[in-house]
Amino acid sequence: MSRQSNRTTESKKMNSELFTLTYGALVTQLCKDYENDEEVNKQLDKMGYNIGVRLIEDFLARSSVGRCHDFRETADVIAKVAFKMYLGITPSVTNWSPAGDEFSLILENNPLVDFVELPDNHSNLVYSNILCGVLRGALEMVQMAVDVRFAQDTLRGDNVTEIRMKFVKRIEENLPAGDE
Amino acid sequence: MSRQSNRTTESKKMNSELFTLTYGALVTQLCKDYENDEEVNKQLDKMGYNIGVRLIEDFLARSSVGRCHDFRETADVIAKVAFKMYLGITPSVTNWSPAGDEFSLILENNPLVDFVELPDNHSNLVYSNILCGVLRGALEMVQMAVDVRFAQDTLRGDNVTEIRMKFVKRIEENLPAGDE
Repeated sequence: MSRQSNRTTESKKMNSELFTLTYGALVTQLCKDYENDEEVNKQLDKMGYNIGVRLIEDFLARSSVGRCHDFRETADVIAKVAFKMYLGITPSVTNWSPAGDEFSLILENNPLVDFVELPDNHSNLVYSNILCGVLRGALEMVQMAVDVRFAQDTLRGDNVTEIRMKFVKRIEENLPAGDE
Repeated sequence: MSRQSNRTTESKKMNSELFTLTYGALVTQLCKDYENDEEVNKQLDKMGYNIGVRLIEDFLARSSVGRCHDFRETADVIAKVAFKMYLGITPSVTNWSPAGDEFSLILENNPLVDFVELPDNHSNLVYSNILCGVLRGALEMVQMAVDVRFAQDTLRGDNVTEIRMKFVKRIEENLPAGDE
């Protein structure tokens, strides 16, 4: 579905429950469509990526956040501005690698998994994997290549949900084709 | 996915854009999975129904709305409380039938269709049809059978989006099995 040029920028604040249940319907549909959990995880990541590359524009327009100077600043913007805006929660940023190129987002309360219990036959499903794709896609549009994965998940019995983000490289901006 | 017993009732307020794009991913997936738009519409309605029968409990807990005395009161609660809570908008309630058993919800600004344009080969797609299912499912759980359908849709070139709701019957509550 393509972008409408005349959409408003007025924002609508909504409770998360309808989103949560709709996301559940999406995951359930993908579990019907694909053979195994690994394929579902891959699809969720891909869908998230496509969402992220579009959501970033909305984010930049709404947040008036400028270019981040380093990965630490990026981490703070993701946790305090982006997650707050689109999921209504503020994860904590922790577990920095000594080189400053990896950190974790700790979600005390992941809205995507309200109402959810993983059935036994989906033990490899990374239920909220769409979030990894969203982060990867959005950051790629601001010239940052990152690896994103779930390191812990309350749905699998962990105490918290932990998203691990690793900076891979800065993507060179394409220079506009010159006349020469 | 089944309900978790210990979820919190704390609500998370989020902007609608991530929901909108995720819903778009769901509709796109269904368009891949099913042969024609009519089947997709049916699936969206069915998914919405399953969401509605679960969302009503959350709604009753959060809203402290009591039993409605008539269909007019139901209409007001849907528009002013439920739509506001879960989609961040307040549709207007209009076009009452003389018998008071039918009305329309007019959505000036349907958050589900931000960013969306229907491709030409999906002219029969009722893109937001999940909402009809949600309303039908939720009301069934409070003993009201209703017909719900889109009468107008900005995605199809109409000036507004109009959801038409018709009261069908009151569902008899099952009496608890007695000892006699």
